[in-house]
Amino acid sequence: MSMGASAGASTALLTDMYEYTMLDAALQDGTAERHCVFEVFTRRLPQGRRYGVVAGTGRLMEAVRDFRPSASDIQFLADRHIVSEPTLHWLENYRFSGRIRGYREGETFFPNSPILQVEGSFAECTLLETLILSILNYDSAVASAASRMVSAANGRPCMDMGARRANEWAAVSAARAAIVGGFQGTSNLQAAKLYDLPAIGTAAHCFTLLHDSERDAFVSQIQAFGKNTTLLTDTYSIEDAVKTAVEVAGPDLGGVRIDSGDLASLAQRVRNQLDELGAHQASITVTNDLDEYAIASLQTAPVDSYGVGTQLVTGSGAPTCSMVYKLVEREGADGSMVPVAKRSKNKATVPGRKEAFRSYEYNLASAEHVISGSAQALAAFQAPEDWRDLLVSYMENGEANPEFLGADGLMRARDHRAKSLAELPIAAMSLLSGEPVIPTQEQLL
Amino acid sequence: MSMGASAGASTALLTDMYEYTMLDAALQDGTAERHCVFEVFTRRLPQGRRYGVVAGTGRLMEAVRDFRPSASDIQFLADRHIVSEPTLHWLENYRFSGRIRGYREGETFFPNSPILQVEGSFAECTLLETLILSILNYDSAVASAASRMVSAANGRPCMDMGARRANEWAAVSAARAAIVGGFQGTSNLQAAKLYDLPAIGTAAHCFTLLHDSERDAFVSQIQAFGKNTTLLTDTYSIEDAVKTAVEVAGPDLGGVRIDSGDLASLAQRVRNQLDELGAHQASITVTNDLDEYAIASLQTAPVDSYGVGTQLVTGSGAPTCSMVYKLVEREGADGSMVPVAKRSKNKATVPGRKEAFRSYEYNLASAEHVISGSAQALAAFQAPEDWRDLLVSYMENGEANPEFLGADGLMRARDHRAKSLAELPIAAMSLLSGEPVIPTQEQLL
Repeated sequence: MSMGASAGASTALLTDMYEYTMLDAALQDGTAERHCVFEVFTRRLPQGRRYGVVAGTGRLMEAVRDFRPSASDIQFLADRHIVSEPTLHWLENYRFSGRIRGYREGETFFPNSPILQVEGSFAECTLLETLILSILNYDSAVASAASRMVSAANGRPCMDMGARRANEWAAVSAARAAIVGGFQGTSNLQAAKLYDLPAIGTAAHCFTLLHDSERDAFVSQIQAFGKNTTLLTDTYSIEDAVKTAVEVAGPDLGGVRIDSGDLASLAQRVRNQLDELGAHQASITVTNDLDEYAIASLQTAPVDSYGVGTQLVTGSGAPTCSMVYKLVEREGADGSMVPVAKRSKNKATVPGRKEAFRSYEYNLASAEHVISGSAQALAAFQAPEDWRDLLVSYMENGEANPEFLGADGLMRARDHRAKSLAELPIAAMSLLSGEPVIPTQEQLL
Repeated sequence: MSMGASAGASTALLTDMYEYTMLDAALQDGTAERHCVFEVFTRRLPQGRRYGVVAGTGRLMEAVRDFRPSASDIQFLADRHIVSEPTLHWLENYRFSGRIRGYREGETFFPNSPILQVEGSFAECTLLETLILSILNYDSAVASAASRMVSAANGRPCMDMGARRANEWAAVSAARAAIVGGFQGTSNLQAAKLYDLPAIGTAAHCFTLLHDSERDAFVSQIQAFGKNTTLLTDTYSIEDAVKTAVEVAGPDLGGVRIDSGDLASLAQRVRNQLDELGAHQASITVTNDLDEYAIASLQTAPVDSYGVGTQLVTGSGAPTCSMVYKLVEREGADGSMVPVAKRSKNKATVPGRKEAFRSYEYNLASAEHVISGSAQALAAFQAPEDWRDLLVSYMENGEANPEFLGADGLMRARDHRAKSLAELPIAAMSLLSGEPVIPTQEQLL
């Protein structure tokens, strides 16, 4: 099954030039084969957010698999003199053969959570940095926003309609990430095709304007798709449109969409009108620059589903997470592994590979525990029995764990988000600004 | 030359489902062949912005050309019962055969500027809506932010380093849009390859950490790339790193990069130190969450170039424009063209196709004139001689104007932005919040 913009095609140039030049220098000086551990984490959540949701990991594994420089990629690197001749030959056979562990897709995360851990030679790990961050940063931003919207919707379905407000391929990833965040469908056909998602849609104002009358447009839509379709009612007068809709479809009208004005009061008026006309089963979908706050404000309005666009695909004010990919441990000249860390001002890192656990009290998460140390110290570390181990195996020897791939992996991620969120303290559901809902406790062994 | 994520591959499902269902209903009711004019515009600029920059149009023309449903796309539409059998057959031969006019890529724009005008049958125009908006909304958001950064940099080069903070394919488009906005290079290799852009890069902290000492890392980088390379100095102590850098490279050191801390004071200290060590030619590149305000604050610091990431690829607070695609005129039952408009609350549209001109006083733009009317009225309209006609021809009978395509088209767009910006009142360069720098005057013929 094809799962990406360029499935089967190389993803090897979706990266910063310095990944290749560092590879080249390291191959020349003999450090390229040093065994390394890199970790992905974020130092902070977006302002006021209580938690984040990991997304993108499933499709990342396919992008890592497809990270095989094509002949034309290598020709480009040669033509531009980006790397030396021996490195070009090395790249012809490149294939990531290491290990990847990380937070399950759909898992909630906090500052300093080791979201992904990539282990292998410096050469093979460093090349992947940009691609890994691109995918995790965007997809997690969308899933994190989606999750808040889904909480605010309180059981009513949320649908992705954001394609037009994002880069055309980002929109495909956003539709997938929205599902991880708890959305139930997408208007984006490429995403529906690639990820086997429910595709949804109503009609645009142009369809009404195309016809000689609104009635003609409604008749056409019902003839094509049956009474169970959703008619767009706000091209001219909503009241007239609802009347016409029920005249045309009868009381079995499927639903109506409202895309402008004060949605709470309009939804109530439309509901009253539909009920008076006997269309008790007709549903009301609202759209129009919804975000989690607008959705929350509509909780008592008679709305049946939300179509969300701009604010979903732009992460509702946080269009990227600030995840970074840092070297935490590497082989030394004597072959032993050495924890390493940079000391840059305000951007220092914690040396050593990490393990991560979540502890619980009364079945609710109480803390994130991030334990650093050597592989040996971590192996000997005995976590309390009721701590949940947060790292799962995504890839061993370059072979992806099928559990997390494809449409099935995506459904598992969606289910896992619901489970992980339900275990967080109730303040996680709050839209008010606040601190991360559980603290991250770091421990160096 | 391959110019997109899926060049040659179909872009036909990068769209919302309702475009296809509206097509299906219109084919069934006989309105699909009605001649239509759709226009792209935005009702407002992002909060406080003085102007926007059109970007993406060149690559959009290639995406329109590639909008040919593949056999597997059609199979998907059939399997999901999204459209009826006759529509599936109609789609097998779909190819946009209409006309597209619009603002030149790189042109500055304002609220209600008719950025793109698409003319053809309803069937062929409606299918393109989502793809057109995805591309123009994202690319213009990036170019608009880039243009402000370039103004703030006041002649110093700005470089795109944002790939890791955007969806992996959005990053490729962002690199291109940054060039339209006046940036001079990108770290993104896929963008450099597709659009023939200068590729740039230094090294990451992991390269220093990989080695047994910072000195070893610097020696390696210089051996691989010569003294003219840029060394990253803030892994440990910047002062020590600069000293080591000049020891290793000698006074001919190419440059250093600073990625943390207070960049203004650090740049000054590093400049002093480099000068004391005789490395007068060594340049200073700064990075670290730069936006247009940070760049402006560094105008008096001895910085030679800016590497910009997150804030570039996320549009510096405005990650999408709010461009919409609206039907403004369509053929009626009698074959004559009828201006149309919706009356949705706060989202009403102006009926009729538009022409757009910019008037000048003392060689500076003074107003945007958007004239609406029938094709005949517009043809008869005599604009004053000194008004600049803003609409250019992108496509006739489905054939793209080669002037705006590919790497050459991109260079023309970059040059045009500089020219268009230079013609705006000086307040356009202000980073302070304000109204659009020239008013849009709408006139209905």
